[in-house]
Amino acid sequence: MSQVNAKSQAKRRRRVRRSPRRPEPGAAPGDLNPTSTAGPLDKRAMVFNEAALTLDGDVTLATLPVPLGDCTTWLDVVGAGTPETLRGIGERYGLHPLALEDVAHVHQRPKVEPYGDHLFIVLRLPRPGDTLAVEQISMFLGRGWVITFQEKSGDCFEPVRQRIRLGKGRVRQAGADYLAYCLLDAAVDHYFPLLEQYEDTLTSIEDEILSSSPQDAIARLVGLKRDLGVLRRAVGPLRDALGSLIHGAGGPFTTDTVPYLRDCRDHADQVLDLVDGLRDQAASLVDLQLSMVSYRMNDVMKVLTIIATIFMPLGFIAGVYGMNFDGAVSPWNMPELRWAYGYPAAVGLMAVTAGGLTWFFHKKGWLR
Amino acid sequence: MSQVNAKSQAKRRRRVRRSPRRPEPGAAPGDLNPTSTAGPLDKRAMVFNEAALTLDGDVTLATLPVPLGDCTTWLDVVGAGTPETLRGIGERYGLHPLALEDVAHVHQRPKVEPYGDHLFIVLRLPRPGDTLAVEQISMFLGRGWVITFQEKSGDCFEPVRQRIRLGKGRVRQAGADYLAYCLLDAAVDHYFPLLEQYEDTLTSIEDEILSSSPQDAIARLVGLKRDLGVLRRAVGPLRDALGSLIHGAGGPFTTDTVPYLRDCRDHADQVLDLVDGLRDQAASLVDLQLSMVSYRMNDVMKVLTIIATIFMPLGFIAGVYGMNFDGAVSPWNMPELRWAYGYPAAVGLMAVTAGGLTWFFHKKGWLR
Amino acid sequence: MSQVNAKSQAKRRRRVRRSPRRPEPGAAPGDLNPTSTAGPLDKRAMVFNEAALTLDGDVTLATLPVPLGDCTTWLDVVGAGTPETLRGIGERYGLHPLALEDVAHVHQRPKVEPYGDHLFIVLRLPRPGDTLAVEQISMFLGRGWVITFQEKSGDCFEPVRQRIRLGKGRVRQAGADYLAYCLLDAAVDHYFPLLEQYEDTLTSIEDEILSSSPQDAIARLVGLKRDLGVLRRAVGPLRDALGSLIHGAGGPFTTDTVPYLRDCRDHADQVLDLVDGLRDQAASLVDLQLSMVSYRMNDVMKVLTIIATIFMPLGFIAGVYGMNFDGAVSPWNMPELRWAYGYPAAVGLMAVTAGGLTWFFHKKGWLR
Amino acid sequence: MSQVNAKSQAKRRRRVRRSPRRPEPGAAPGDLNPTSTAGPLDKRAMVFNEAALTLDGDVTLATLPVPLGDCTTWLDVVGAGTPETLRGIGERYGLHPLALEDVAHVHQRPKVEPYGDHLFIVLRLPRPGDTLAVEQISMFLGRGWVITFQEKSGDCFEPVRQRIRLGKGRVRQAGADYLAYCLLDAAVDHYFPLLEQYEDTLTSIEDEILSSSPQDAIARLVGLKRDLGVLRRAVGPLRDALGSLIHGAGGPFTTDTVPYLRDCRDHADQVLDLVDGLRDQAASLVDLQLSMVSYRMNDVMKVLTIIATIFMPLGFIAGVYGMNFDGAVSPWNMPELRWAYGYPAAVGLMAVTAGGLTWFFHKKGWLR
Amino acid sequence: MSQVNAKSQAKRRRRVRRSPRRPEPGAAPGDLNPTSTAGPLDKRAMVFNEAALTLDGDVTLATLPVPLGDCTTWLDVVGAGTPETLRGIGERYGLHPLALEDVAHVHQRPKVEPYGDHLFIVLRLPRPGDTLAVEQISMFLGRGWVITFQEKSGDCFEPVRQRIRLGKGRVRQAGADYLAYCLLDAAVDHYFPLLEQYEDTLTSIEDEILSSSPQDAIARLVGLKRDLGVLRRAVGPLRDALGSLIHGAGGPFTTDTVPYLRDCRDHADQVLDLVDGLRDQAASLVDLQLSMVSYRMNDVMKVLTIIATIFMPLGFIAGVYGMNFDGAVSPWNMPELRWAYGYPAAVGLMAVTAGGLTWFFHKKGWLR
Repeated sequence: MSQVNAKSQAKRRRRVRRSPRRPEPGAAPGDLNPTSTAGPLDKRAMVFNEAALTLDGDVTLATLPVPLGDCTTWLDVVGAGTPETLRGIGERYGLHPLALEDVAHVHQRPKVEPYGDHLFIVLRLPRPGDTLAVEQISMFLGRGWVITFQEKSGDCFEPVRQRIRLGKGRVRQAGADYLAYCLLDAAVDHYFPLLEQYEDTLTSIEDEILSSSPQDAIARLVGLKRDLGVLRRAVGPLRDALGSLIHGAGGPFTTDTVPYLRDCRDHADQVLDLVDGLRDQAASLVDLQLSMVSYRMNDVMKVLTIIATIFMPLGFIAGVYGMNFDGAVSPWNMPELRWAYGYPAAVGLMAVTAGGLTWFFHKKGWLR
Repeated sequence: MSQVNAKSQAKRRRRVRRSPRRPEPGAAPGDLNPTSTAGPLDKRAMVFNEAALTLDGDVTLATLPVPLGDCTTWLDVVGAGTPETLRGIGERYGLHPLALEDVAHVHQRPKVEPYGDHLFIVLRLPRPGDTLAVEQISMFLGRGWVITFQEKSGDCFEPVRQRIRLGKGRVRQAGADYLAYCLLDAAVDHYFPLLEQYEDTLTSIEDEILSSSPQDAIARLVGLKRDLGVLRRAVGPLRDALGSLIHGAGGPFTTDTVPYLRDCRDHADQVLDLVDGLRDQAASLVDLQLSMVSYRMNDVMKVLTIIATIFMPLGFIAGVYGMNFDGAVSPWNMPELRWAYGYPAAVGLMAVTAGGLTWFFHKKGWLR
Repeated sequence: MSQVNAKSQAKRRRRVRRSPRRPEPGAAPGDLNPTSTAGPLDKRAMVFNEAALTLDGDVTLATLPVPLGDCTTWLDVVGAGTPETLRGIGERYGLHPLALEDVAHVHQRPKVEPYGDHLFIVLRLPRPGDTLAVEQISMFLGRGWVITFQEKSGDCFEPVRQRIRLGKGRVRQAGADYLAYCLLDAAVDHYFPLLEQYEDTLTSIEDEILSSSPQDAIARLVGLKRDLGVLRRAVGPLRDALGSLIHGAGGPFTTDTVPYLRDCRDHADQVLDLVDGLRDQAASLVDLQLSMVSYRMNDVMKVLTIIATIFMPLGFIAGVYGMNFDGAVSPWNMPELRWAYGYPAAVGLMAVTAGGLTWFFHKKGWLR
Repeated sequence: MSQVNAKSQAKRRRRVRRSPRRPEPGAAPGDLNPTSTAGPLDKRAMVFNEAALTLDGDVTLATLPVPLGDCTTWLDVVGAGTPETLRGIGERYGLHPLALEDVAHVHQRPKVEPYGDHLFIVLRLPRPGDTLAVEQISMFLGRGWVITFQEKSGDCFEPVRQRIRLGKGRVRQAGADYLAYCLLDAAVDHYFPLLEQYEDTLTSIEDEILSSSPQDAIARLVGLKRDLGVLRRAVGPLRDALGSLIHGAGGPFTTDTVPYLRDCRDHADQVLDLVDGLRDQAASLVDLQLSMVSYRMNDVMKVLTIIATIFMPLGFIAGVYGMNFDGAVSPWNMPELRWAYGYPAAVGLMAVTAGGLTWFFHKKGWLR
Repeated sequence: MSQVNAKSQAKRRRRVRRSPRRPEPGAAPGDLNPTSTAGPLDKRAMVFNEAALTLDGDVTLATLPVPLGDCTTWLDVVGAGTPETLRGIGERYGLHPLALEDVAHVHQRPKVEPYGDHLFIVLRLPRPGDTLAVEQISMFLGRGWVITFQEKSGDCFEPVRQRIRLGKGRVRQAGADYLAYCLLDAAVDHYFPLLEQYEDTLTSIEDEILSSSPQDAIARLVGLKRDLGVLRRAVGPLRDALGSLIHGAGGPFTTDTVPYLRDCRDHADQVLDLVDGLRDQAASLVDLQLSMVSYRMNDVMKVLTIIATIFMPLGFIAGVYGMNFDGAVSPWNMPELRWAYGYPAAVGLMAVTAGGLTWFFHKKGWLR
């Protein structure tokens, strides 16, 4: 049954891991047809400064907020939009078509790209659920404004929204670059609960291997290593991108925000450390499982060998005295059969043989 | 049968992977005898600017288009040419003999080499088909002109040609360096469908391993890892070459095209990520298959052990009562045989033995 | 029983390795709620210069010593404090809120971060005990003052405290940066006894494998490799951080202290070398154990094969002469049974068969 | 027999791989006693310019050609010379004693070393033959002259000599640095035929493994990986040395020759790519072979299990009815024996048992 | 017996590998109590210039030679000294206390450290003997003087001493930095004979594996890999340290000595190459051994299977005709027994069965 499970698991994984549709090779760059199949578009905007939160709600293409000098504007777009929407937003904020293409085609590696006076940041966010899904989040950071694009509606940015609403922490005072940091940090921190879950899975697989060597242990470890590889590829480039932001700062990020970015990169480093530790762990468990299987086979073989080795000589003795040589013809033909104590002697011989072999196995340490 | 298949597959692969003939060690550089055995040469040219597509068709050595100041000229050469043709083209556009030699000898690593005012770019393109073939594409990029050399006729550049014909996107306006980018991008994007195919193959091998552990699974994984290694070596150096173009730009590439090059390198990075993920995957499946084989052997051993361990003691009991000791000689000789309930008792002993052993195996968990 | 042990070991490990509670993703930075569950806070201060040790005892938030120009002030905080305490200390010494957050959340990687005129240093310290616990130690180094935060009360810094009390070595004369070095060095040196303990464990596992191939050897090696991975991740970043201190010194560290920092980094290098050597060793022992198991299985198989191969032909011979063909019907039916030397001949045949097979096994080298 | 072959192969390899005699530790540098045991010295010189080939033949120490301003002088020394010869040549051309020592001690890694106005280049060249021998070639390049030292007489430079004689290509016009490039390139290109040979060997080992799992497959793969390691260590440092020549050119190499050096480094890169691919391949084949062996063992086990599992119950039934319980004593004692259809019933029971087990194995898929 | 050997070997190794006593964590730096347990101290000095060797013999702390402007002074200290001695030497030559501590604590990694106008160099030297011991050699190099500290008396520097005595080579003329190079070079060259010995060991293990698969092969390979790891860690940092000396020369090393240092680094590179090659080799041999064990197990299994598969059906036939069904009751009961040719027919059936199975095994290729 576990085999069937493993198989159906593999099938489900295949359904999910299928990368989203890519544009045809040779297509013109700047194609804005979304490759994700997520639901309809949803646009929320927040405009705030230290004093007040002047806008907090859904907007349309027509009512996109214009960034103002003393306010921070955050436009959060959720779901796959139509090319027109993307183009409309792009024109309003002066976004580069290549960056917009990367927003629409949700299979980008995490990266930071400077486009004139604004930055384009791509990161990937794991999503809780049955199977591992790593959603793309695209972010534009200009002077005084942040635009985020999420593949699916979720609550990943909700805590930040709450902090803005409640004016908690520095987020209302500290400008758009600090907001961008808050969003980046919220995204990176989403990896930790997931990794703790993987840690638990690994520990429970280890326990199972030690107690019963389940047949699908390796299949599950293979799946887990694949997932960890996906996470590694989702965080590794982000870490490097954050490093380049810190060292070559300038652009929209101010010196005040650099310690925060450093903190965020530290978190990415911790994620990578955890991922690498878990991968090592999974690789070790493969060894452990293979060795447990060998051990159990060894056990099986020992039982077979002990039984066969004891009963074969005994059976042979019994077979000898089952032979039908005719004692009437000559005294050489099986005189034992006609000896008064023949049977007790034969049984005694068997007992001695069995005892000797048992002692031999005991000495070999096979009976323990 | 599957073994035969694997063997014939290996043979086919050998036929194909054979690297093309290399020149003799010590030969003079600049040897233009083509090492590829592809069909005859075919030369197509396009000359266009924003306003019009002034030339679109086959040309001969005599009618090679001259690059004009306000037009972009693209000469696309398909198939293995004669040394004369190469020399003719080289003289017309001022190409370096070493670069021409690399065009003729189609076993180059991807690279970008500056020669005075033009760039020489080599890339490798996977070709759909039964076995993996990675064709060399050589490209020269000068001010206002692009020359490409393909090993075999194919439709890899056809979408770009269509975009030029239809004036779609920026390709007609944006100059020769943007055209070069379009061609590079079209080539890199050709890796994605192939990798998705490999992904499917891996998933189906995983399914097969989990359900039936086919004997040739490892042979197929070995072949797949080899193919992935070939792809890695085809894309890795290209990625580095693109990186050097981006950072040390200058030359024919203008600043406007740099974001596009960056996009193209991102694609190469994605290819490498995918290739590495698939290689890890293939390595894990080797572990999985080895463990499944062990498991199945363990199963076989258990059946053998259970049967042997149950029937050997039973057979021994039957053998004992088949002995021919002469009861007439003395009462010690097998009195059981002459006991009224001897047979039922013997059968009972056998039943108890068999039951005890079954209980032992049940306790060991071997019957599950 | 060893299996049970391994299992309970795994459980204990799980209880311990559980990373401390992390703040929710998206929480505002600067959250000072401690993630550690260690006991109540304990604050000890020492103020000293070359001439005298003017303060050595517990202090409260109200009596925090003020750094004076000609003295070195060391405040050592042990245990998880309340947010208020941390904030109080932070305000008194001008510490950055992000650094204070890292003090409260004890799952940081080792690092060195400059904050204006003071440095923030995180390191991790292994703690003796049943299972591996790697405690976080946070340190602030300003001009004339050092603040350390330890998770749990321990004697890790006691030797340094003694050296200050006794005025041994340069510690009283040499200023706050030398004190910081002393504390760093004391922490790094704590890895050595632990690693020697692991070395002993590995050697004893090797001995066990060679003499008896214990079933839980691989489980123990897997646990050991995990621990070594934890240590590697605890020391590796520290080594890099020390390197950056040495090269980009400046800040609170004076040129005089650089050779000492270099010495400390050398120790970190030695720790890493030892860890890597032990990991290689553990990986080799996994190979060794797998091979020993194979060998023993081979031994078991040989015994089975020898016994089965000798007694099967013998049993067959006995079986043949146990057949009941009726010799009275025809002279073709088992005349051997009625031959005067039938039985001795049969026994002789058996002896020859057994001898021949023994010779065969001897030649094969299986009897050695 | 294959085992014997593998053994004798290993012995031959040992004889060959034995590194040449090194000088005693602590010996003074500049020891010119050759460590190679190759035959007597042979000195050939060529002096040429664009117009003419003024010298082409053997020379003695007394008649060493003096480099002239407008000519290129190439002195090619073959075989192990006496210290006097080396010293004589060294004095005539002003060579550094350490470089001369490296010429005499033929176990150097490939390298490029600047000594004042001349360069000293060491490379290693594989030699066709039964076993892998990687000969050292030392080269000095000054302004207008090239000196090469080969361990053994061979035709590795013969094609270059022919090109000089025939005035083919640029070699007569282009000066000493171009000649040095030609020689380097000829040496590097010698790796390709050898690697193709290894490729063929690997493919044939793969075929053998798939069809018959030869016992010495792994021994041969181990030998092959060792040889590939030797090649890697022979080409890797050369590649780096060429890279340093290209980037930090200057010295005897002129800017005109740099593209040629780049070409030569490309070839070295190709060699490394091929070597790495073949090593991966060999490692995969080890996996393949181990899995094939497991498979075959599994097959063997299945046959054993099927036969044993079918015949043990049958034999038991036969054994039961071979028991000698005395039916005359009571009707409980084996009434079957006295039943009219007892024998057909027993045979029927056996047939049903055998059929049931066969069906069980069929269901398990072991009969396929 | 081989197992016992392996075990005692492991024990001996443990006794030896035990790292020397380290100072307690937290101890003050500058502790000069030697951690080595080597014999009493022995101090030898040589003072020489081009013209004469003015001092060559043992000295005491009181008679330590003072470096003179035109002479080179070499003080060679052998064995573990008392703290007083070290302090005395340190004061006389102005050595840094931290460097002296590293001299006393003989578990340093190889390194080069500048201390004002003198250099402190640590290297490690393998010592011939039963087990691998890697002794620490500490060296100070100032203007005109060299001080070396060896753990144990040995002849590692004897050849250099002879060269000084005999005035052979440049050592008398060339100053203290050249002397330091000579000593470094003598130390590095000591690795070669050791590595050749390991090479021989590996080759002989390979031969043994191929001919008899000794049980302790993997244990010996594990030990060998550990030793090679120790050597790698002893030479790797030295190589880097030499590289930093070459590039950032200055200090006591003059430009004239740089080519010699480069030569010495080349030797270190060769050592690393050899070590890496041997490690690869050892890893391959583990594979080889595991595969040979599998093969032999396969062989054993085949013999068992062939014997069991042939004799089980035969035994069954014999068993059938040993059944006691009463032919007198009905003609259905074993009429064969009463057939005139029953016995020959049964024997014939057995022969046919045996022949058929033999043919089956022949076809399967198991008899080869």
